[in-house]
Amino acid sequence: MRNPFLFFVFLQFLLNTISDTMYRTHTCGELNAANIQQTVTLCGWIQKIRHLGGMIFIDLRDRYGITQLAFNHETRPELCAQAEAMGREWVIQVTGQVIERYSKNKNIPTGDIEIDVETLKVLNKSLVPPFTIEDVSDGGDELRMKYRYLDIRRRPVKENLIFRHKLGLEIRKYLSEQGFLEIETPFLVNSTPEGARDFLVPSRMNPGEFYALPQSPQTLKQLLMISGMDRYFQIVRCFRDEDLRADRQPEFTQIDCEMSFIEQEDILQMFEGLVKDIFKKFKNIDIEPIERITWADAMKYYGSDKPDARFGMRFVELNDLLQHKDFKVFNEAELVAGIKVDGCGNYSRKQLDGLVEFVKSPQVGAGGLVYILCNADGTFKSSVDKFYDQADLKAVAERCEAKAGDLILIMSGKAMKTRKQLGTLRLEMGDRLGLRKAGEYKLLWVIDFPLLEWDEETQRFYAMHHPFTAPKPEHESMLESDPGAVNANAYDLVINGSEIGGGSIRIHDQELQKRMFKALNFTEEQAQAQFGFLMNAFQYGAPPHGGIAFGFDRLCAVLSDCDSIRDFIAFPKNNAGRDTMLPAPTPIDPKQLEELYIDIKPIPNGK
Amino acid sequence: MRNPFLFFVFLQFLLNTISDTMYRTHTCGELNAANIQQTVTLCGWIQKIRHLGGMIFIDLRDRYGITQLAFNHETRPELCAQAEAMGREWVIQVTGQVIERYSKNKNIPTGDIEIDVETLKVLNKSLVPPFTIEDVSDGGDELRMKYRYLDIRRRPVKENLIFRHKLGLEIRKYLSEQGFLEIETPFLVNSTPEGARDFLVPSRMNPGEFYALPQSPQTLKQLLMISGMDRYFQIVRCFRDEDLRADRQPEFTQIDCEMSFIEQEDILQMFEGLVKDIFKKFKNIDIEPIERITWADAMKYYGSDKPDARFGMRFVELNDLLQHKDFKVFNEAELVAGIKVDGCGNYSRKQLDGLVEFVKSPQVGAGGLVYILCNADGTFKSSVDKFYDQADLKAVAERCEAKAGDLILIMSGKAMKTRKQLGTLRLEMGDRLGLRKAGEYKLLWVIDFPLLEWDEETQRFYAMHHPFTAPKPEHESMLESDPGAVNANAYDLVINGSEIGGGSIRIHDQELQKRMFKALNFTEEQAQAQFGFLMNAFQYGAPPHGGIAFGFDRLCAVLSDCDSIRDFIAFPKNNAGRDTMLPAPTPIDPKQLEELYIDIKPIPNGK
Repeated sequence: MRNPFLFFVFLQFLLNTISDTMYRTHTCGELNAANIQQTVTLCGWIQKIRHLGGMIFIDLRDRYGITQLAFNHETRPELCAQAEAMGREWVIQVTGQVIERYSKNKNIPTGDIEIDVETLKVLNKSLVPPFTIEDVSDGGDELRMKYRYLDIRRRPVKENLIFRHKLGLEIRKYLSEQGFLEIETPFLVNSTPEGARDFLVPSRMNPGEFYALPQSPQTLKQLLMISGMDRYFQIVRCFRDEDLRADRQPEFTQIDCEMSFIEQEDILQMFEGLVKDIFKKFKNIDIEPIERITWADAMKYYGSDKPDARFGMRFVELNDLLQHKDFKVFNEAELVAGIKVDGCGNYSRKQLDGLVEFVKSPQVGAGGLVYILCNADGTFKSSVDKFYDQADLKAVAERCEAKAGDLILIMSGKAMKTRKQLGTLRLEMGDRLGLRKAGEYKLLWVIDFPLLEWDEETQRFYAMHHPFTAPKPEHESMLESDPGAVNANAYDLVINGSEIGGGSIRIHDQELQKRMFKALNFTEEQAQAQFGFLMNAFQYGAPPHGGIAFGFDRLCAVLSDCDSIRDFIAFPKNNAGRDTMLPAPTPIDPKQLEELYIDIKPIPNGK
Repeated sequence: MRNPFLFFVFLQFLLNTISDTMYRTHTCGELNAANIQQTVTLCGWIQKIRHLGGMIFIDLRDRYGITQLAFNHETRPELCAQAEAMGREWVIQVTGQVIERYSKNKNIPTGDIEIDVETLKVLNKSLVPPFTIEDVSDGGDELRMKYRYLDIRRRPVKENLIFRHKLGLEIRKYLSEQGFLEIETPFLVNSTPEGARDFLVPSRMNPGEFYALPQSPQTLKQLLMISGMDRYFQIVRCFRDEDLRADRQPEFTQIDCEMSFIEQEDILQMFEGLVKDIFKKFKNIDIEPIERITWADAMKYYGSDKPDARFGMRFVELNDLLQHKDFKVFNEAELVAGIKVDGCGNYSRKQLDGLVEFVKSPQVGAGGLVYILCNADGTFKSSVDKFYDQADLKAVAERCEAKAGDLILIMSGKAMKTRKQLGTLRLEMGDRLGLRKAGEYKLLWVIDFPLLEWDEETQRFYAMHHPFTAPKPEHESMLESDPGAVNANAYDLVINGSEIGGGSIRIHDQELQKRMFKALNFTEEQAQAQFGFLMNAFQYGAPPHGGIAFGFDRLCAVLSDCDSIRDFIAFPKNNAGRDTMLPAPTPIDPKQLEELYIDIKPIPNGK
C-alpha cells in the first residue's frame, strides 16, 4: 500500500463492509427446527394470507421455498393492521424469531417452523395478478405468456428453468472433461438458403447487403475442425424462419458437437456416455447400452424414423398370407401389414368402429382398417370374414404371435404411406393402453439413414440431413448411378419417440463434396456461391470429422416427461412467432429503416 | 432383453464395438519416455519436414502438441519416398514404435521420443497455405482473417480459444455454486433505440414488423428478477450496430448477472469473489481487496473513469500556485494541473519538444504543455521561466512531491477537457517509462457515477449507464431540481485501465422509473411505447435488484495481457463489420426479400 490516497480508499472500503446492511439473513427455503430461537430477516412475495383466530399467517415465497410468517393480534396489533392491508404478490421484508410451528407441514422443508414477526417492511406493492400463482394456475396460455414474468413465479415453470440450468452446466462439465472446447461462433453470418428459411439482418455499414442468423453452426464447426480444434461443442441458439408447427420455436437451443479423426462408432460411444451421465445424475437411471436400429428397419417395424420403443407392437408383413383370396384392397396393395394388440380381443363393435374412424381421420388419412379378434375359444372374428376363412386368419394370428384374447389391426396400400399410417395407429394404441409410460425411457440410435430424399414436387433430391453428410464409403460409387440407394453414416438419437439428436460423419474431401452438390442439383457456380468458403477450406488439409447436435429444449422436455418445449424456455414465442410480453416484433421507426436503406413494400390484405 | 430382434441388434452392436478401428491411439501431445517401445497410431498435420542424413523427420501437429516422426531411408525406402511427396499441412495417419530420441528437445513435452514410422496414410492433401502456420506468422491481418481456419492452427490463437473456453467454464461453475441460474433470454426481441443502434430482423410471418437483436439482456434480466429467479447469469452474445472503433465488434459476449434483495455492497462483494477466483485459478495471483475510487476522484486524479492504477503519476491541481503571475494561459484556465514524472528531470530539449508535439497531436488535442525540470542542484528549469521565479517553481515541485531529477508536466484549460488530455499524457508517460507492466494487475472499483450526462448537441440528459439505473436514495429528491448533480449506485470494474465490467442498482419502483424517463426527456407515451412492458411489470411486485455485466472478450484479453479482443474471438469481424472468410454480409436473393416484403432503396454513391 505505497499510496496514502489508496490506503484511505481501502479504509473506507473496510468501513463500508462492516456497516453493510443486508436485505435478508436467510432465504425462504432453508429454515428448519435447527434454527429455532434465531432472529432472522427474510424477503419474498406474499403467496397467501390466512386469518385464524387471533392470528394472521402469511406464506412468504421466494425462489428457494415458502416460509410461514405468524402475526399475533394480541401482542402486535399494529403489525397485524399493517399485514391486513397487504395483498397477494406484495414484496415484503420481515424480521422475527424462528419458532416451532403448532401444526407442522410435513410437505415442505420449512414446515416445522414459522417466524414470529417483529418488524415488517413493504418493499413493493403489487396489483392483483391476472391469474393465480399456483402449481395449477387459472390463467390461460395466452394470458400467462403475456405476463410470463408472473408465470415464472409458479413452481413448475420455475423448476423447469432450474432444471435446464443444471442440465446445461452438467453437459458443459462432461464434455469439457472429454476434451471438448466450447467455442463461440458468430451469429451474424452468411445466408445459405439450402434447407429452412434464414432470418436476415440488413447491414447498415454495408447497405444493400444482409447477414443471416445461423440455422445451426454446421459449417462453422466444420471450419473449426479444419482449424485443428479437434473437439468442439457449443450450447448455442439457432434460428429458423419456418411456419411454426405446434411446439416449434423460431429460435431454439442446440448442443452442437463436432470431433476430428473419428468414425461413426466413436461418436456413438462418446455421446452414449454423455446420455448415460445425464440419466444417472438427473434421473438416477442406469441406461443400458443403447440399442441400434437401421433407418430401414425402423420404417419397416415401426413406420417411423423415431420409434417409441417403450412398447412392442412391431409391424408384421402379411402380403404372402393375405393376397391369395379375392379381397381386392389387399391384392392391389404394395404392402399389407398388421400389429398385434395384446388383450384387446374383446373390443366391442363400437370400439372397433372408433379405431376405423381414427385411421380415416385427417391426422392419419388411411382408407380403412381390417381387424381380427382372437376369440377365447380359439376361433377368429374379422371384418373381412367373407374373404378369408378361419385357416387364413389363424395363419395371420400365428405370424403375429397373437394368442386368444388379442386383437390384430391390419392396414394396406403403398408401402411407405401404409407404414406411416400404421405407425400413427400403433402410437394411438400405445396411448390408449397406457404403454407410453412417463418415467420410463427407451433410447434408440437410428442409423444408416438414406443420404438423399427424393422430392416429387421439385423433382430433385434433397439431403436428408444436410449437404455435408458423407455417404457410406461402400456406397460412394452409386452417388451418380443410383443416388436414392446411397446410405449415409448418419444417426439420430431417439428417446421415447422424440428425436433428441442427430448427426453424421461429414465429407472432408473437396471432390466428394462437389459430387454431392451435383447430386443435389447444384450447379458448380451455385455451390461455389453458397458454400465456396467451406469447399476452399477443404483444400487446406481438412481432417476426417463428424458430429452431432442435440435439441436442448427438447432434451429438457423429454427428461421431464413434458410434451412442450415452451415450458423450458424462459420467454418463448407463440405460433405466430410473437413474444406477446415484450412485445416483438413491432413496427419500426422509419428513421431506422432509412439508415438501413430498406423500404417496406405494400403488404397485401390478409397478411 | 424381452425382444429377440433387439437382442440381435445388441449383438451387432457388440461386434461393431470390437471391430471398431480407431483413427489414433494417442494425440500428438502425450507421448513421452514412459511410452518407449509401444506401437502407436497418430494423426495430425505436417508442421515441418526435415532431411538429415539418411533420415526424414516430420513434426506432426495436432491441438495437443507436436510429435516427431522419423523415416529411415535405409530400412524403409518406400515410406520415405511417400513422405518426400508430402507437404506442409497435409493430414496424415502414421503407425510406428515410440523410440528414444537421439537429440532431445527439452522445450516440448514429447521431446524425449520420436515415432519410428512403419505405416503412413495420407488422410488429406493440402495446398501450400497462404501464410506460415507458426507462432509468429508472415501473414498480414487481412489474409489471416480470410483464412481464419488456418490462422487458428497457430499456437497463440489456438491457446487463446482454449483459454476462453476454460475461463467461461470456470465462471459458470463459480456463479452456479453461488446460486446463480443461467437462464437463456431471447435473441429476437423488441427494438429499444435509446442507446446504441439496434440490428433489426424483418419478420416474414408479421410483414412490416421487425425484431431487434438485443444490445444486452438488460430488461429481460430485470423481468427475471421480477419473476423471482433471485440470481441470474448468462454468458450471452450482444449486438450493437455502431460504427466500429478499433477493437469493437458488432457482436460481443457479455457475462450478464443480476441479483435480487441486494444492495451495491452485496454485488461488489459477490463479484470481487468471482474476480479473485479467476485470478487465483488462471494467474495464481492473490488479489488484494479491490480498491474503490469515486468517479469524481478518478476524473480528478487520473482524468479517466477507468484509471490504469498500475502506476501513480496522479494529478496535482496547481491553480492557487500558478494563477498569481502574468501567464495568461494559466490565468484564464479553469484548471491548471500537473503530473510528476520520476527520474525524467534530465529530459533533453528534443525529448521535451516531443512531448509538446504529442499533446498537440489530434489524439490529445491540447494547446500546449508546460514543463519543469527539477535539476540535480536543487534549481528548476521550466518552459515558463519568464513568468515564474524559482520560488514559484519550488512551491509547485513541493506540491507535486518532486525531488531533484524529476520532471513536472503541466496542462491547463477547461477542467474536464484538461483532465482527459492530461490523462492521455499520463498513460503515454507510463508507456514510455515501462510502468504499464504486463503480468501486473491493478483492479479498481469506480463507484458513485453521475446518473445523467448532459449532451451539448441534443441539449438533453442521457443516462450514463442506462435508463434503469437507480439514483442514490439520498439524491432522489434532486432528480427534477438538479439532475446533473444526482449520483447513481453504479459501479465499474477496471483492470489496468480497461473497463471490464459495469453495473448498477436498478430502479424497481414504477413512479421513480417514470421520473427517470422524464429526466431523460421521454414523453409518457414514448416511455410507454418503448418500455411499457417493463414499467407494467414493476406494478406486480418487483423486488429491489441490481446487477453487473462483464465484457467476456475484453476480460480474456486483459487476463492474457493482450490488446485486441479479436485474438479471443474464433471468427471476428473487421472494422467494416465484415466477416471476410464466410463472407458476410452479402447481397441476397431477391426472392428472399420478397417474402419479407422489403425492398432495397437506391444506395447513394460512396456508401
